[in-house]
Amino acid sequence: MIASSALRVAYQGEPGAYSEAAAHRLFPDAELQGHAWFDGAFEAVVNGEAAHAVVPIENTLFGSVHPVYDLLQRHPLALVAEAWHRVQHCLVALPGTRLEVLREVRSHPQALGQCAAFLRDRLPQAIPVAVHDTAGAARMVRDENRPDVAAIASRRAATVYGLNVLAEGVETHPDNFTRFVVLAAHAAFPAPGVACKTSVVFSPRPDGLLAALAAFGTRGIAVVRVECRPREGHPFQHAYFADVAGAAHDPPLQQALAELEHVAEAVRVLGCYPAAALPRRILP
Amino acid sequence: MIASSALRVAYQGEPGAYSEAAAHRLFPDAELQGHAWFDGAFEAVVNGEAAHAVVPIENTLFGSVHPVYDLLQRHPLALVAEAWHRVQHCLVALPGTRLEVLREVRSHPQALGQCAAFLRDRLPQAIPVAVHDTAGAARMVRDENRPDVAAIASRRAATVYGLNVLAEGVETHPDNFTRFVVLAAHAAFPAPGVACKTSVVFSPRPDGLLAALAAFGTRGIAVVRVECRPREGHPFQHAYFADVAGAAHDPPLQQALAELEHVAEAVRVLGCYPAAALPRRILP
Repeated sequence: MIASSALRVAYQGEPGAYSEAAAHRLFPDAELQGHAWFDGAFEAVVNGEAAHAVVPIENTLFGSVHPVYDLLQRHPLALVAEAWHRVQHCLVALPGTRLEVLREVRSHPQALGQCAAFLRDRLPQAIPVAVHDTAGAARMVRDENRPDVAAIASRRAATVYGLNVLAEGVETHPDNFTRFVVLAAHAAFPAPGVACKTSVVFSPRPDGLLAALAAFGTRGIAVVRVECRPREGHPFQHAYFADVAGAAHDPPLQQALAELEHVAEAVRVLGCYPAAALPRRILP
Repeated sequence: MIASSALRVAYQGEPGAYSEAAAHRLFPDAELQGHAWFDGAFEAVVNGEAAHAVVPIENTLFGSVHPVYDLLQRHPLALVAEAWHRVQHCLVALPGTRLEVLREVRSHPQALGQCAAFLRDRLPQAIPVAVHDTAGAARMVRDENRPDVAAIASRRAATVYGLNVLAEGVETHPDNFTRFVVLAAHAAFPAPGVACKTSVVFSPRPDGLLAALAAFGTRGIAVVRVECRPREGHPFQHAYFADVAGAAHDPPLQQALAELEHVAEAVRVLGCYPAAALPRRILP
């Protein structure tokens, strides 16, 4: 939890979306501001409309959230925190609704797919209907006041739209976690002694990826993760995003970054933040 | 071009799709077999229904095609060739149609977006309508016999559906290329002397990514590209796909792979194939 008061925090989606739930957990007192597109959440921080944006960057089942990586290339924002958030789907419906009366279950197609076994075994009479997002499905159930329709959405969506949770954890695969990052206009400086990660993006010279990564390796700096995206405006070149262990101001990491500047192009430190612990796995 | 006769070759999409065009260019005499999903194209090769599948793996604008990487983890298929293919959008319509009479332009939303400037400047009177894919848009124009509707699709789609190309290269960004790979049930052995690439997938130990890549680096083997995906069935672990320079049977690469087996998990050589030259860029 990050201390905050009267902050405005941007996210992508609508109230009850998993991004909103993550933003709420990180900034419980903030005014949360939903945006239809990731671009809007980034621009809100660039324009100073919001102090932070909370955006998903990686999911245990689906991998990297590429639009977010691409927007990081384009906007001069800093990563200042990270947090894992469990995606736990709930079956939500109007208060008083029982499972037996449900004739339709709405959600994002991905969420419907993740809950297919539950729907087949427990709700064989209900038709799955795909809509644009999980929170939107919950809002529709509330707005249409339909006692025969449920949504698959977050517990937070049930709270936001005054719905009941009929069943929790209805996904087949319980290891569904999303890592969110917090963006800000300016870099943060984590307190000394805190285990940190630093994120950096660079474009290697042809066949120069290992030379670039060796800037870290030769100094004993662990490269925790590497993500590859097209380098915008430079066809056939790539932008590599590396998360490395340590704080950006540690002398060895400073030296590694100086070396990286010599062996790669377009080097930019995206930020330095306390490394989030992996969440405890929920065994099936 | 790969020699072939009476081969069956699977692809994802329908006739006139960019994948079909790529498969046709690689296997001009083959019987091409479209599949609604990538899974179907992979399974056709696994089952022996098709000798090969031609699937996109990387695009210069949009990056990696992640479903294909994930299917490579799941299926015991080999990469045996790669080729770059230009994605060049055409405005296609029934024979005799002129630009002035068009009232609607259909295509995949991504293709409409890529041609937005052309549509705005040259066809301000036509409404863009999103459909599921580019070849499907061309087929609809033919099936509905609508002289006031055009599609944005490949030149090949125009040929397949008997449509005219009213304008070619209508995309704003001409550097739109897709790299396709050819899958087979068994590995190929490129002729000696041919410049090859070898693709390998592995899962590093915690913080062991650099140790794994060093198996190549310490032997002077260039790592051309690295792609990171979730390791299926192992939450919080990653599968890294590395394309490295050289043939899998070269002694230094053999040694590197032996070392990789010691420092990483789930090592698998996906295949070894002649390295495709980068296509010539088309300047705007």
